[in-house]
Amino acid sequence: MGDALHNAPRALADGKSRIDFQTEPARYRHWKLAVDGEVATLTMDVDEKAGLFEGYDLKLNSYDLGVDIELADAIDRLRFEYPQVRVVVMRSGKPRVFSAGANIRMLAGATHAHKVNFCKFTNETRNGLEDLSEHSGVKSLCAINGTAAGGGYELALATDHIMLVDDGTAAVSLPELPLLAVLPGTGGLTRVSDKRKVRRDHADVFCTTEEGVKGRRAVEWRLVDDVVPGSKFDASVAARAKELAARSPRNGASAGIKLTPLQRTFTEAGVGYDAVAVEFDRAARIATVTLRGPAAPPPASADAMTTLGADFWPLKLARELDDAILNIRLNELDVAAIVFKSSGDPAQVLAYDAFLDADRDHWLSREIRLLWKRVLKRVDLTSRSLITLIEPASCFAGTLAEIAFASDRSYMLAGSRDGDNRPPAAMALGDVNFGAYPMSTGLTRLQCRFLANPDAVDAARAVRGQMLDAARALDLGLVTFAPDDIDWDDEVRLFLEERASFSPDALTGLEANLRFAGPETMESKIFARLTAWQNWIFQRPNAIGDEGALKRYGTGQKPVFDTRRV
Amino acid sequence: MGDALHNAPRALADGKSRIDFQTEPARYRHWKLAVDGEVATLTMDVDEKAGLFEGYDLKLNSYDLGVDIELADAIDRLRFEYPQVRVVVMRSGKPRVFSAGANIRMLAGATHAHKVNFCKFTNETRNGLEDLSEHSGVKSLCAINGTAAGGGYELALATDHIMLVDDGTAAVSLPELPLLAVLPGTGGLTRVSDKRKVRRDHADVFCTTEEGVKGRRAVEWRLVDDVVPGSKFDASVAARAKELAARSPRNGASAGIKLTPLQRTFTEAGVGYDAVAVEFDRAARIATVTLRGPAAPPPASADAMTTLGADFWPLKLARELDDAILNIRLNELDVAAIVFKSSGDPAQVLAYDAFLDADRDHWLSREIRLLWKRVLKRVDLTSRSLITLIEPASCFAGTLAEIAFASDRSYMLAGSRDGDNRPPAAMALGDVNFGAYPMSTGLTRLQCRFLANPDAVDAARAVRGQMLDAARALDLGLVTFAPDDIDWDDEVRLFLEERASFSPDALTGLEANLRFAGPETMESKIFARLTAWQNWIFQRPNAIGDEGALKRYGTGQKPVFDTRRV
Repeated sequence: MGDALHNAPRALADGKSRIDFQTEPARYRHWKLAVDGEVATLTMDVDEKAGLFEGYDLKLNSYDLGVDIELADAIDRLRFEYPQVRVVVMRSGKPRVFSAGANIRMLAGATHAHKVNFCKFTNETRNGLEDLSEHSGVKSLCAINGTAAGGGYELALATDHIMLVDDGTAAVSLPELPLLAVLPGTGGLTRVSDKRKVRRDHADVFCTTEEGVKGRRAVEWRLVDDVVPGSKFDASVAARAKELAARSPRNGASAGIKLTPLQRTFTEAGVGYDAVAVEFDRAARIATVTLRGPAAPPPASADAMTTLGADFWPLKLARELDDAILNIRLNELDVAAIVFKSSGDPAQVLAYDAFLDADRDHWLSREIRLLWKRVLKRVDLTSRSLITLIEPASCFAGTLAEIAFASDRSYMLAGSRDGDNRPPAAMALGDVNFGAYPMSTGLTRLQCRFLANPDAVDAARAVRGQMLDAARALDLGLVTFAPDDIDWDDEVRLFLEERASFSPDALTGLEANLRFAGPETMESKIFARLTAWQNWIFQRPNAIGDEGALKRYGTGQKPVFDTRRV
Repeated sequence: MGDALHNAPRALADGKSRIDFQTEPARYRHWKLAVDGEVATLTMDVDEKAGLFEGYDLKLNSYDLGVDIELADAIDRLRFEYPQVRVVVMRSGKPRVFSAGANIRMLAGATHAHKVNFCKFTNETRNGLEDLSEHSGVKSLCAINGTAAGGGYELALATDHIMLVDDGTAAVSLPELPLLAVLPGTGGLTRVSDKRKVRRDHADVFCTTEEGVKGRRAVEWRLVDDVVPGSKFDASVAARAKELAARSPRNGASAGIKLTPLQRTFTEAGVGYDAVAVEFDRAARIATVTLRGPAAPPPASADAMTTLGADFWPLKLARELDDAILNIRLNELDVAAIVFKSSGDPAQVLAYDAFLDADRDHWLSREIRLLWKRVLKRVDLTSRSLITLIEPASCFAGTLAEIAFASDRSYMLAGSRDGDNRPPAAMALGDVNFGAYPMSTGLTRLQCRFLANPDAVDAARAVRGQMLDAARALDLGLVTFAPDDIDWDDEVRLFLEERASFSPDALTGLEANLRFAGPETMESKIFARLTAWQNWIFQRPNAIGDEGALKRYGTGQKPVFDTRRV
């Protein structure tokens, strides 16, 4: 079968045993982040010997997941560490080349799961860049000094303004189809059709032309915003960056907070963070992610929050949860289901939500909310079955209740367990459940849940702040099942066993459909229409077979295609 | 490679050499169409020995493409032959079973291409049933007298009203995931989430429960509209059908027209119809489809149109084009590109459009327009590269201009060919290009084309009725390229050679993304999100491998899954 090809994953470079999503500017190998007042510059200068896996060189600013992890980190730092920044300029540190896109030898040797997860992460990073502009006011400009091919051009597409040098050779291109028999994997087609709104026949020509489009035609076809002669390029970029900065509504403090390294301990049994614990039951193929509520009430003021910085509970929890999810996605492929639990006081969680609401215009409050929005979207897009268990002493309230609504199912224990003196499980809603965390479709999770019955959203809104027991939560439609102590263990165990017995692929497809009822947006189209087709193509012999284009690229041999159209 | 499994397609039954999409009630093996005044009844009573291919029996009202071809034909006959019908009741001719869905042995033995095209056609048929209700006013009711599993329930989902007998065993189910490790392939997930708006966690339970849901829970979870005791079932169905008929706005004539058999001649070189000609260049992997304009002006009146019936040019052309496209899709898998040409007088095409506009409230005019809408959507969804060549003596005007807008690219010859005394090519628009034929996304093809620039739609509207030469058509953005006689042959030839050299799979994915810029609707979500994921799963060893669920179904052996989540 096709998957025989994928059974021998590449080794990670430098003897590493897992992909690590944590980094910091001092450790970057591929990017340089420079901040000059309101203008930040992100310079891509990929170290070709510093690939994430063994077996390829990252030539011509081509990239792998390791390069993108640094980019994602840098964007987060612009948010939290540099609130004064109003525009970010993306440029290349290499002469006459912006970026050759995703590294082809990396892709050709990657497992199917890695290719899919690599594309998902890079998509999330690019969506994050657009969110940075739309919601944090940091406008972005891409200065293309040479060729921007494939993923290189897709990175440009995620910025607000694309400038291309006009030197007779610099061009933008999406050569994936003619060169590699795959699709641009990082939103390229959707951003060409739905963001840049390139006419479909022009897009057809562009995406089937290996060398791409340059000069005036690139502007006429809406592929770039400006073409500028080389002699004027740097000055024009600087001037345009100033213009964009002037249009930015961002009004942050002059000093940010430091995103200090997460405190983590990896063991065979799990991952320990400060506010998150991950436990693996490898026989059952389950990861249990426990979220710990705040240990103390919210700080007295926004200044006190800023002083706490990365130790402020909502920020710490979001960063740790994000890291935990990414670790499961990329390093724990055998996990079938993620079980979310929590421990703590739901009233305290609501108090933190209220604290952030009270200071919602403070730059740090806003960035923390936006981070939660992105982490929750990351959960929505995680291709594992998601289950929330709401038990006594848990704290699925407000922001944390969104975890239950992001899950495929939730179980809430009715009453107490025999011999447990703690009060029964409670769930609670807050303002935050009604708008702060839209899904990629633009709906809140409750709007999506109650698509048939918007009145149910109003009924839920009416009970904000109340502690809801299992019977009320079930009645309001907020949880799936509410078994009592007698049934709980068997019901949950049988469900998890069943889940682990199903085809992982079919579950991925099922969940990708059922989680996103309602409208589609450009962002959701990227993950639905484009990603799903790309994943299909990533399985097809015409791409990945021994005679396929991805395997034969660079060998001098032409690919051989099965010519039947499907 | 995975496709090794698919290299030996099943033989068609009865020694046939191609799948034929033409049938008529007298030849049906699987359905009975009965009309009693305003109520039509479509009874599914599948002849298990009359499968389309050899090697399986169609037990328990399971179906294959042959069964669905009859259903599609019956729906068309309700439109054209029975304009008095206001409600259609779908029911089963078998006791205690409605339908077991798509035949599993058929699926397990089908090529990947056949599975994908089978699902596409059945989706189009179900969308057609919904269109029949929404736009022709023929309401639909599904009377489920027993089990409706998988595709059986998906058929019910396409009706307006689902009634389930309440006898303790009758149930609706989507058991594809637990039984077969695939997804419901005919819109089931999307209709559950977006049409019936079933809560996502209920949908998760439903789609992972092999035996499905019955009785009150089926109503509470919005899976059906009514459950009715067996003793009252027939009377309740009849009463509900009368109610639906009373709400129908359909106000057709008492007598329809006869959809007479298409006159066709199949040869190795192509297919000859009366108004359509298909020529295959098998070496180049191209099918040229030539549409012939009307031979005479429109008839004098709507009555005269009705008298012409199936010989009325717009109706004949639509039916022939539909058959030609379906023949290429299912029987000519090696065709990489469809080249559309036309011959005739563009002014005459506009005259027919104007004739239909003048009588737009006549039931037959409306049905012809709706048929064209569906045929054009079928073109949009055809996974072959689509090219329109606009040359002297062609007639891409009005309705036929939509073919050019549905194409991935269009080429229009500027000026005349050396030695050709005919006038240069002309294109023309009419009212019909601005609303009559929306795509599945709800946009007209011109709105989709000019997503960036709605003014361009207005500019095109302003030139309705004018004969546009190549320079004007190019200037208005209506065609992709306008080469002159010197460049034409090379430019077109090189393009078609290039197209045939690319990976067919990558082209399918590219075109599926670039053709549908803009919003998504439930219909477009079915073909994008759901179909794309299903196609991926249809390639995965967990479904189709030797140890996969689809292969092992019914063998008594459990499937073995690669447990890595992707």
